[in-house]
Amino acid sequence: MKFGGTSVGDPERIRNVADHVARHRRRGDEVVLVVSAMGKETDDLIRVAKEVSGTRPGREMDMLITAGERKAIALVCMALADLGVPAASFTGSQAGFITDTKHEDAKILEVRADRIREALEAGQVPVVAGAQGVSTDNDVTFLGRGGSDTTAVALAKALNADAAELYTDVSGVYTTDPRLVETARKMNSISFDELLEMTANGCPKPAMRSVEYAVRHGVKLHVRSAFTWESGTWVVEEDPNMEHATVRAIVHELNEAKVTVTGVADRPGVAARLFRALADEGVNVDMIVQNASEEGTTDISFTVPHDELATAVSAAEALKDELGIRAVIGDPSVARVSVIGAGMRNNPGIAATMFETLAEAGINIDMISTSTIRISAAVAEEDAERAVMVLHDVYRLDQSEY
Amino acid sequence: MKFGGTSVGDPERIRNVADHVARHRRRGDEVVLVVSAMGKETDDLIRVAKEVSGTRPGREMDMLITAGERKAIALVCMALADLGVPAASFTGSQAGFITDTKHEDAKILEVRADRIREALEAGQVPVVAGAQGVSTDNDVTFLGRGGSDTTAVALAKALNADAAELYTDVSGVYTTDPRLVETARKMNSISFDELLEMTANGCPKPAMRSVEYAVRHGVKLHVRSAFTWESGTWVVEEDPNMEHATVRAIVHELNEAKVTVTGVADRPGVAARLFRALADEGVNVDMIVQNASEEGTTDISFTVPHDELATAVSAAEALKDELGIRAVIGDPSVARVSVIGAGMRNNPGIAATMFETLAEAGINIDMISTSTIRISAAVAEEDAERAVMVLHDVYRLDQSEY
Repeated sequence: MKFGGTSVGDPERIRNVADHVARHRRRGDEVVLVVSAMGKETDDLIRVAKEVSGTRPGREMDMLITAGERKAIALVCMALADLGVPAASFTGSQAGFITDTKHEDAKILEVRADRIREALEAGQVPVVAGAQGVSTDNDVTFLGRGGSDTTAVALAKALNADAAELYTDVSGVYTTDPRLVETARKMNSISFDELLEMTANGCPKPAMRSVEYAVRHGVKLHVRSAFTWESGTWVVEEDPNMEHATVRAIVHELNEAKVTVTGVADRPGVAARLFRALADEGVNVDMIVQNASEEGTTDISFTVPHDELATAVSAAEALKDELGIRAVIGDPSVARVSVIGAGMRNNPGIAATMFETLAEAGINIDMISTSTIRISAAVAEEDAERAVMVLHDVYRLDQSEY
Repeated sequence: MKFGGTSVGDPERIRNVADHVARHRRRGDEVVLVVSAMGKETDDLIRVAKEVSGTRPGREMDMLITAGERKAIALVCMALADLGVPAASFTGSQAGFITDTKHEDAKILEVRADRIREALEAGQVPVVAGAQGVSTDNDVTFLGRGGSDTTAVALAKALNADAAELYTDVSGVYTTDPRLVETARKMNSISFDELLEMTANGCPKPAMRSVEYAVRHGVKLHVRSAFTWESGTWVVEEDPNMEHATVRAIVHELNEAKVTVTGVADRPGVAARLFRALADEGVNVDMIVQNASEEGTTDISFTVPHDELATAVSAAEALKDELGIRAVIGDPSVARVSVIGAGMRNNPGIAATMFETLAEAGINIDMISTSTIRISAAVAEEDAERAVMVLHDVYRLDQSEY
């Protein structure tokens, strides 16, 4: 069971977590906890570091930030002790998380979970600090933001656990954003591939790295709420039932912008030159569309995160002469709406339905990109929410699948 | 160099510490730092623990509290990095502090300072978390309040350092409380024995344990200010110069109370019974005076900390019948004034001067206790400050000794 920052945000929440664990113990479950730093603690630590220092070496940032999780694990153990549940806290190092030496973003190399196994055998609930480990140089390392999810998944794998339960402030994965569509439905299960497409497309779900780790090692995930404690969404390898469903969820991302570069010479290497220049400036390009145009020139459009628009435009402008660019046009008001479902692979009609539905709603599609289990359309920002609603409706996502 | 909580209490103070260390490095000094948790952080952590839990197991309290020093060492290293001083933080465990398994008050068994030596050889300033270690059970341990002083002294010994410098918010050891006596003088040096008598008698100086450790291992201490950075007071083995001085300091303790038990049967074992009962209630008895009285009975008076008076009185009352006690009288308004000096051993006139001086000032002495280098008198609380002043004056402590 992994508990995120909001789940242990104050003394009452910590006691609620302990209650939940105690109930599972009474049921006979063997439980291991992974805990993040309380609430905004990590942000607070970073803020203090910025007040103290302009350089902030990574080794010291990791020593600093990992203090947050230490506090949280100790407090959770104390709350468990109050309920008569024997518990013992373990730092990342004590729990056997060996990482590489890349500070602030270390990768797990190995989990030597001997002390955790011993604690379990002694009848204790081990409570492990999330997102931390010890490097091969014997230094304290931080796995980065969202690293607690990775800790939980890696530990579940090392212990051969039935599942990694990721407790958060949402109650599971929904067919679409429930704040937007009243009939949005919590899914009982979702495949790894689907979840990966969703996390990459604006759904605020487990850290990508942890999901990738779960895929690679076949760890079942259960994304659920530390507030309502209801059962959430299981993330599993695809199962046969899923084939019945085609589209499973609609996700959207408002924080997008579009850049169009017109009149580019239509010759090999031109696109490569443009996107290398953007990469060098650290711009994250998402969708790319290239349209053949009149007279040996072409237009290239691509989307970038909203706050990288200015950088992207000036990087493209700098290539004007070299590439014979006619104009660089930035559009800050673009959104991406995506239709996701593992069953889409065998259902060629899905895309047609999507485009027809948007057209009937008078919503213009600017750009299209697809993967085998996702179709994304860039639309005007003002149309995004309506697009989500009509699509959620047309694919009948409000109705239980199986 | 050990820096206490107020010395690293905020970002500016942390940068000041880094400046000071950088100056010493430019002078060619090899420096190792020991750092306490920032300001009131340890109190804050304990407060949160109390909000979360009623039981608070020691192992978890230690995991919690030691997070404070981790933050501090990381931030100090960052500030040093800003000044171009290579630095590396080390937890108690990384610095090789092996302790027993007594949580919240662990004792150092061994210091395996290999990593600290390596860091020094690599030209770095090692910055070590104070008051923490790892137990022989591989658990995180806290050395208790004031434990950072002990860390500094033990590390100085392990590294064969020239001295342990304890930076604090006072600029050294004074002949008496400078808030009370305008002519109080900072001492250039003081012997371990004298300092031990002073710390036991209300002078807010290095933690007892650290001084005892320094005595045992011959580590020179330098108590000095992290605010003015001026040279402070050296604490050393007695040197010949000290013999010239007789009385070296006057200390006082206002936070005392007196209990008088009258009409106790004057037979063997009675006092033992009384003080065992007090010890069982956790009462810290300080001065004890027994007066032979009329008709085979005796009066016993003793002092206790102010807030233990009620407990002490009721513990004594409970023995009324058993010991034939006539009355138990509590007096909350007692103070202790002590005259301290290693040279007193060979100067029998000191006590007479003390009693005469107090008598001339119209101050009544309630009880007297002595060690070879200290004479303490219990007086009425309202007379305490005046007693300090007249004694500081009569022994000419305002004048430089040598």
